[in-house]
Amino acid sequence: MTAFVAPTEDILFSLHHVAGAGALAAWDPELAGDILGHFAGFAERVIAPLNAVGDRQHAQLVDGRVRMPDGFVAAYAQLAQDGWQGLTAPAAFGGMGASPLIAAGVSELFSGANHAMQMVCNLVPGAIATLMKYGTAAQQNAWIPKLASGAALSTMCLTEAQAGSDLSAIRCRAENTGDGWRITGEKIFISGGDQDMSAEILHLVLARSSAANAGMNGLSLYMCPAQPDVSVTRIEEKMGLHASPTCQLRFDGAKAELIGTEGQGLQAMFTLMNHARIDVALQGVAHASRAADIAAAYAAQRIQGRQPHGSPALLNQHADVQRMLDDQRHLALGARAMCHIALVAVETADSPALCDFLTPLCKVFCSEAGIRAADLGIQILGGYGYLNEYGLEQIWRDARICAIYEGANGIHERSIATRGLRAGGGADEFADLVTDLAHGSAPVLQRLADWQILRSAMSQTSDPLPQAHAFAQQTANLFFAAAWARIDAVAENHNSPSELRRLHRR
Amino acid sequence: MTAFVAPTEDILFSLHHVAGAGALAAWDPELAGDILGHFAGFAERVIAPLNAVGDRQHAQLVDGRVRMPDGFVAAYAQLAQDGWQGLTAPAAFGGMGASPLIAAGVSELFSGANHAMQMVCNLVPGAIATLMKYGTAAQQNAWIPKLASGAALSTMCLTEAQAGSDLSAIRCRAENTGDGWRITGEKIFISGGDQDMSAEILHLVLARSSAANAGMNGLSLYMCPAQPDVSVTRIEEKMGLHASPTCQLRFDGAKAELIGTEGQGLQAMFTLMNHARIDVALQGVAHASRAADIAAAYAAQRIQGRQPHGSPALLNQHADVQRMLDDQRHLALGARAMCHIALVAVETADSPALCDFLTPLCKVFCSEAGIRAADLGIQILGGYGYLNEYGLEQIWRDARICAIYEGANGIHERSIATRGLRAGGGADEFADLVTDLAHGSAPVLQRLADWQILRSAMSQTSDPLPQAHAFAQQTANLFFAAAWARIDAVAENHNSPSELRRLHRR
Repeated sequence: MTAFVAPTEDILFSLHHVAGAGALAAWDPELAGDILGHFAGFAERVIAPLNAVGDRQHAQLVDGRVRMPDGFVAAYAQLAQDGWQGLTAPAAFGGMGASPLIAAGVSELFSGANHAMQMVCNLVPGAIATLMKYGTAAQQNAWIPKLASGAALSTMCLTEAQAGSDLSAIRCRAENTGDGWRITGEKIFISGGDQDMSAEILHLVLARSSAANAGMNGLSLYMCPAQPDVSVTRIEEKMGLHASPTCQLRFDGAKAELIGTEGQGLQAMFTLMNHARIDVALQGVAHASRAADIAAAYAAQRIQGRQPHGSPALLNQHADVQRMLDDQRHLALGARAMCHIALVAVETADSPALCDFLTPLCKVFCSEAGIRAADLGIQILGGYGYLNEYGLEQIWRDARICAIYEGANGIHERSIATRGLRAGGGADEFADLVTDLAHGSAPVLQRLADWQILRSAMSQTSDPLPQAHAFAQQTANLFFAAAWARIDAVAENHNSPSELRRLHRR
Repeated sequence: MTAFVAPTEDILFSLHHVAGAGALAAWDPELAGDILGHFAGFAERVIAPLNAVGDRQHAQLVDGRVRMPDGFVAAYAQLAQDGWQGLTAPAAFGGMGASPLIAAGVSELFSGANHAMQMVCNLVPGAIATLMKYGTAAQQNAWIPKLASGAALSTMCLTEAQAGSDLSAIRCRAENTGDGWRITGEKIFISGGDQDMSAEILHLVLARSSAANAGMNGLSLYMCPAQPDVSVTRIEEKMGLHASPTCQLRFDGAKAELIGTEGQGLQAMFTLMNHARIDVALQGVAHASRAADIAAAYAAQRIQGRQPHGSPALLNQHADVQRMLDDQRHLALGARAMCHIALVAVETADSPALCDFLTPLCKVFCSEAGIRAADLGIQILGGYGYLNEYGLEQIWRDARICAIYEGANGIHERSIATRGLRAGGGADEFADLVTDLAHGSAPVLQRLADWQILRSAMSQTSDPLPQAHAFAQQTANLFFAAAWARIDAVAENHNSPSELRRLHRR
């Protein structure tokens, strides 16, 4: 298998030149280069070689505890020791206090090297952000240092068997016993619900507090450390992401603490979820980039068929293979640019509405870009793409979950086509962003004009749901085209990575 | 998991009413109903329950021999005993002499129940056709009765490590020793290259005879029974189709007989390959149909979210889910119609050019329809779609190979855009077929007119290869639209299956 090579240069170019990270006061390109460079080495040497091992061995449930595949425990120990779990934690709590942009770069590299391991480790930044926003000082002091040092990992316990996409159906109960809160119920699909890498685990649990109403308003967010009253009743057998234990958890009156205000759990959870959603988008970017790398390396050395004048051809000399290789790279670079542009826009505009509009767009487009690029990679390699040993089929299987978890893509598409189009819903700011990215590109501005007509029609229709998918796809494709207009504009003016220059010049 | 239910009624409707099988003298709808009905019961009771077993256990290489998963040997014995392996063999050789249309129906049911097992068993009809066309009477007498009775299974040995899509690079040698032919070399990706279900195995091997030229002209076709001089050197670890052993075979001077004329091997192989390609298209139809069934059954009982007026909704009451369910069914019914229409057209027109045009079109479109419908099914089920136990992820993994084997789809697209457009290449007959299917439908006729312009441009360009994919996709989509025009026309006039009527009336 082609060894994982971290696309560090591409990521830095994208953050700095494409997304214009310099607009943020805290942006320090040299520091970003240092941090990403260090993580890249660790990812290439330590994390990436465990990716296929984890896929073969799976996380296992043994005597009620999850055992991670060979090598994961040692790799995590080094990850924690080097401080990577505290990347975004404030320095006061022992973290590095790095910007979300650097964190996005690290997260993409982590997922490209080993999505399953990243999945278990990388709910921590969202947990830290949630505690910083909603936790008491005591809660912050008790847990953020442990999360930052890697002594603890965290989970996100939302889904229940009868409550998948619809959180209002949650039945898990929280009772205030006088002696504190106790949680009772079952949660499913809990990534990293148990593992043997960290000494402690902090579950963030959405539960219905007995005093409150039914529906969304009755939900509160709790923190519940792993304890004997929380047990793993099964782990799922999945299509991919085999090293990420997807657990069913039973809470039997487990002691917990309320985070924030009772009945405001969903609001608190949104901090966690928005973070997780951009992270899923970056997983898609990582898969697209890795799939493009593997396919390009293979196609550059595999001899197949003949050139027009009769001498043997390399696979990448065939027009149809070139088309697929270019599609992969286009998806990877454009999807990465979308995420970085969205992160910078959200940081500079400080607009929740824009964040709520761009986050689902990135989640939908980039998750599908990862799947699509992996699929193209399988096709480029042909029979070899279908074999385990070339790694592409694992990428597809791992990538496929990204369109499902953290909100199935259809749910996000509905949000774009409904909430996003209401007054103050982010669509105007999105249109301004596209105009800015377009740099006067006539095709992109024409697409924007077409989109405005469609948007107007959508916001006036009595039932936008049947067209939500088509509208959201068109919106995401507009964003992708605008991101590429921006890439094209900066690729002319800067010393851009070679693949990007090549595509730009097509 | 939703049990496999054979779509017998849909297949019969498609053959009889949509494809107009009555145009063939040999067509007997009652006989077809009887045969398909019998096979449907066998597929539902015996073959389908082994599908998940095979996926879990894999075919195993043990001490140089392939061991099939539990239950496969007994199921094959019954399949053979009931005469199904002789379905298309002439009665004189102990077969049923059934028409290719009935065989297509049986093949689809077999693949829908258990693609991996079908893959190992269903190279036989192509082998029989090849022997009938190119074999000597002695060869026919020696092998067709064994193939028809199930005593022997057959393989198709083309691919070598350095010769994937490019058969001219084949190095496997055949030498005439005076004492008959001897084959030496290695073949890879041989489906059913070994197994423990049939007493004998007949390998059909494409090899370079020492006397002949390099390139395509030096290739001859041989029949080479399994023997100690043919050994399995490995079986591949794949993304799916785990119960179908994909073997690497070494021929060490193995005794063989020439089939047909020396140097004409490729021509003889085309009989086998065209048969296999329509069979792959039908595998895609089978996957699309099965994926649509599982998703529809799930969405009809899963409660998720709420209806506009607030009461709990079934999953299939959400507009976005309806869109995906309808897309699946459209793909399944349309792809099936395309295969059946192609088979009837080829039988009635007796035109090799039309056959060479329609076969790759069906192969490309239907293989992708199966993958796409499985993917939609995963998305409809959400997190459950990603789990092994609901069966959809296996369908995707099994279906994915269909776009790769029997000629990667890109190769077929090239053939459509080059050979297909030459004088006498089948494009004119295709256009006539579309006109006929359109039944005066203005949108289809408009698409045909647009396609004619594009076709004319393609046939005049100096290098059609960069546009081959786009052109072939447009051609296939035109065929799909025409097939649906035909379905719509007959659905009004006949007692059509309910799903088809529902889609027709949308």
